[in-house]
Amino acid sequence: MSSPAFRVGLLGHGTVGSAFETLLAERADAVENATGLRPELTGVLTRSRGEFEDILANADLVVEVMGGVEPARDYVLRAMAAGKHVVTANKQLLSQHGEELWSAAREHGVQLRYEAAVAGVVPVIRVLNESLGAAHIDRIHGIVNGTTNFILTEMAARGLSYEEALAQAQELGYAEADPSDDVNGRDAAAKMAILARLAFNTPVHLDDVRYEGIERLTNEDMAYAQDLGLGLKLIGTAERVDGGLSVRVHPAFLYGGHPLASVDGPFNAVTIESEAITEITLSGPGAGGPQTASAVLGDVVSAMIPPASTPPTQVQLPIVDDVESAFYLYLEVADRPGVLAQVAEILGMQGASIKSVVQKGLGENARLVMVVHPLLESRFFAAVALVEGLDFVRSTPRAIRVIEEQFQ
Amino acid sequence: MSSPAFRVGLLGHGTVGSAFETLLAERADAVENATGLRPELTGVLTRSRGEFEDILANADLVVEVMGGVEPARDYVLRAMAAGKHVVTANKQLLSQHGEELWSAAREHGVQLRYEAAVAGVVPVIRVLNESLGAAHIDRIHGIVNGTTNFILTEMAARGLSYEEALAQAQELGYAEADPSDDVNGRDAAAKMAILARLAFNTPVHLDDVRYEGIERLTNEDMAYAQDLGLGLKLIGTAERVDGGLSVRVHPAFLYGGHPLASVDGPFNAVTIESEAITEITLSGPGAGGPQTASAVLGDVVSAMIPPASTPPTQVQLPIVDDVESAFYLYLEVADRPGVLAQVAEILGMQGASIKSVVQKGLGENARLVMVVHPLLESRFFAAVALVEGLDFVRSTPRAIRVIEEQFQ
Repeated sequence: MSSPAFRVGLLGHGTVGSAFETLLAERADAVENATGLRPELTGVLTRSRGEFEDILANADLVVEVMGGVEPARDYVLRAMAAGKHVVTANKQLLSQHGEELWSAAREHGVQLRYEAAVAGVVPVIRVLNESLGAAHIDRIHGIVNGTTNFILTEMAARGLSYEEALAQAQELGYAEADPSDDVNGRDAAAKMAILARLAFNTPVHLDDVRYEGIERLTNEDMAYAQDLGLGLKLIGTAERVDGGLSVRVHPAFLYGGHPLASVDGPFNAVTIESEAITEITLSGPGAGGPQTASAVLGDVVSAMIPPASTPPTQVQLPIVDDVESAFYLYLEVADRPGVLAQVAEILGMQGASIKSVVQKGLGENARLVMVVHPLLESRFFAAVALVEGLDFVRSTPRAIRVIEEQFQ
Repeated sequence: MSSPAFRVGLLGHGTVGSAFETLLAERADAVENATGLRPELTGVLTRSRGEFEDILANADLVVEVMGGVEPARDYVLRAMAAGKHVVTANKQLLSQHGEELWSAAREHGVQLRYEAAVAGVVPVIRVLNESLGAAHIDRIHGIVNGTTNFILTEMAARGLSYEEALAQAQELGYAEADPSDDVNGRDAAAKMAILARLAFNTPVHLDDVRYEGIERLTNEDMAYAQDLGLGLKLIGTAERVDGGLSVRVHPAFLYGGHPLASVDGPFNAVTIESEAITEITLSGPGAGGPQTASAVLGDVVSAMIPPASTPPTQVQLPIVDDVESAFYLYLEVADRPGVLAQVAEILGMQGASIKSVVQKGLGENARLVMVVHPLLESRFFAAVALVEGLDFVRSTPRAIRVIEEQFQ
């Protein structure tokens, strides 16, 4: 064929960058058929080869898959100032400098697409931006970190400890040698900041997101979850609360019927709730070079056709820190008469009512595991602090949020 | 605000049309923020009011939610010839006259969007068209009819008969007074024709789709499914087979781990498989006025921003009729020594090997239920015809396809 060329410059040539180069060559005919333009890779920047200025001069669009904030931010800004479209997979950059970048894209009339920055090939950015571009969204729940979902799946399915499951994730390439940002929730927090910005059309910075990781979860939590018919996941939540917005990441139990409860292994999934549509769930592989490269290519093709940029923010919703949640509470207690009654009374004074309770073991090894109905987190934790002071409570209580069905 | 107006003409004012009118008014501010244009409903055509020519003259875009082939086809063609974009929810029209319509859209340089025609608010058209516009897709599985999925869910969960579950679906408004096209698979077939056209970039007409419905399924099938750890759904499949394409709809068992196995009630879901990305699953409400209207609005907003039309077909893949499948086989037999051995021998001669078998009941009430490994359908049905002739087989054998995991 002899279509006009569409020139692509590539910044970064790691796992994603090299997979993208391969995929672009493989799919060039299909892209040409879809767009009437022939995509060509006209330059690659790595640590050891290529000059940014040369690549920029020879590109209609720049793909940024270097990661990290600098120099990626500088390159992306310079590319847009030069009138080039940009496709990026960089969640750190967008969750910390998104407004600056989106505003530059609008100013220079270019596209800035970033499907690959959140949930890999799961097309959540496009669906929020386009299918639901005019929808009133109430809440998003997401499993947006494949490493932690793999670890939790292994703990639940095979009874591995956290440490064992992490070691296995590292062996299989699902976790990095330094997995800190995955297991402490920070990676998921960056992705939730981006999703929340888009869904609620209000500025959200990574610093606005509260996050907890999975490092403290134990096999016992998993076992009791099964007794209670719950699944344990690292869940990101972004939701409207009292005229504001709460964005957070923490371990949470899901009832068996929740669409995210059956998402296992290194997969990602996002549920978008809106009163008008009840809910949409999107799931698929959250990472991996070819998968992420496929998301990048989808963005490149869209940029070749025409626009849809991120609209200006419409309102600035306040960030809400204290929200309602149901909780699972695990207590190690000395098994004496009246133990449950005393715990229930303290919880009740803070407005926490018990939904279900399981007692296991005897004497000094007794454990009391319960689920309480939704209440403000601040009140629940105040109650837990009081419970911890009871003389028969033998160790620090463990509390984990429970996500309940919204539409029944 | 005082943005320029974007004029929308509406053809049809039933459940979807009136929900769209309400939604457009509610979300006008959000649409204006996203697009810089203020959407206005400038005309409505119903059986008793409005003139098509007037509506056309006053519209930048026409929404067609009348249903049926004529006069919808005529109106859509005339709208596009007049340079208007069209958004339609009409699966009958697209599955029978899609090529004519898409070609007219390209000829006149207008957009023809149809997210609401398949799987309601589940954004499968957009994802196939855009996110995966350049991907090599291997297979699509879909639950694309909410009525039948509701019926099957009730049969499985509550032990209702087909007739009881259908009556309940009608009572709750999930099934029409005449549910024929839902329960016989034709509605799902039309949707699969549209998805297959888009995923495989080859012409697919409703007549190319083989379909079976759910009318013959019984509680016993459900009960044995549970014994075997399987879920029973009405599944649409479109897949590459030996350089060709197979598109079909039939009841099928899914292993518990399949992403569609947990899709219950009136929900729809589609799984898109591609070697490069493994699989993406999209799910959500498949019908309902507000949900379908939300899908229509997403398309309207996209048309307001700019294009992406359906590309010309690239190749014409042959339609394949005989494909491999695993099967569940239910036999009522007289319980004598050697019964299973004879059945297994006949199956084996056709290349069917038994994966698991359950025998229930005694004497004249014995039933033999088995799952066989994948083989060509023609060979399996040849074997079943021979089995049916055995003197100890007391009624017509029942065969249902089993969908196995592709990625393990």
